[in-house]
Amino acid sequence: MRLYIGLVHFPVYNKNHEKIVSAITTLDIHDMARLATTYDVSRFFIVTPLDDQQEFARRVLRHWLEGYGGRYNRHRKEALECVSVVGSLEQAIARSHEMEGEAPLTIATDAADPKERSISCAEAREAIWNNEVVALLFGTAWGLHEEAIRQADRVLVPILGKKGYNHLSVRTAAAIILDRLAG
Amino acid sequence: MRLYIGLVHFPVYNKNHEKIVSAITTLDIHDMARLATTYDVSRFFIVTPLDDQQEFARRVLRHWLEGYGGRYNRHRKEALECVSVVGSLEQAIARSHEMEGEAPLTIATDAADPKERSISCAEAREAIWNNEVVALLFGTAWGLHEEAIRQADRVLVPILGKKGYNHLSVRTAAAIILDRLAG
Repeated sequence: MRLYIGLVHFPVYNKNHEKIVSAITTLDIHDMARLATTYDVSRFFIVTPLDDQQEFARRVLRHWLEGYGGRYNRHRKEALECVSVVGSLEQAIARSHEMEGEAPLTIATDAADPKERSISCAEAREAIWNNEVVALLFGTAWGLHEEAIRQADRVLVPILGKKGYNHLSVRTAAAIILDRLAG
Repeated sequence: MRLYIGLVHFPVYNKNHEKIVSAITTLDIHDMARLATTYDVSRFFIVTPLDDQQEFARRVLRHWLEGYGGRYNRHRKEALECVSVVGSLEQAIARSHEMEGEAPLTIATDAADPKERSISCAEAREAIWNNEVVALLFGTAWGLHEEAIRQADRVLVPILGKKGYNHLSVRTAAAIILDRLAG
């Protein structure tokens, strides 16, 4: 598998549908890194343009990779080894392109039904299992801004609840999507 | 579906394989309630024997069900309506028995391979979709204590990562399991 994931903190929506940079959550770094390691993801990109947020994420990573964290819990160290901090979606895509020697198929995830360029879980799974380079993009806060969605090649159909409820946390949505596509 | 889930804070293991009561995490309440609502779970039980921890969980629920939280985000209110706080596994099982008029099939989840009474995802899914009453038990901290596992009728086979890594957070493990069994 040549699968990449990005946890995007900009551009995303806030509750009032405004474009914002969301704050990094350490718990998301851990949960997503543990998922990435479980599903053999090549690299997990934390995307934020803010220097202090990048430094914060790198400090968390240093604690677990080089500091006391890694001695306290080696399973966390193992998981966090796949994490890279980048400044933009473009950088995340460029890095995976560089690592694989070809451009990834970028797939945005969104809780809303895609209006165009939609891709089903089955199709996305096929691309991944056919060894295509795939980058899955997950939005924090109230989800990926339309600018981020426009940048992606395809948009994954959303996870629909039994009664139409589709308000999962990004952590649990990523878990379900990774299991469906790469499990 | 007549599906119940329990997030168990006692008896569970700590890092040193000792029996402990773990602390409630508000984020787990939200993530698991949102999952429960997505997958049409009848009731989500938060299991802790500690009075102050029960009161803490109930205070969080009041904020979202009756206080400002429900006005701030109605999707959270909708999700948290399925949550009950109980003092023990026995109480959780008794409550689901009471609600359905029959005893649930209790299924413990564990990251280790079950030695006995194992049940596959396919079998568990069949029970749920055959409208049997099923209660899925998830352990916090370092997982369900063997006493809790012995209390369950069956033990679900674990989620195995590509490279044998199986150290997911309880939130993301529950997401994957609910999607496999009830999705």
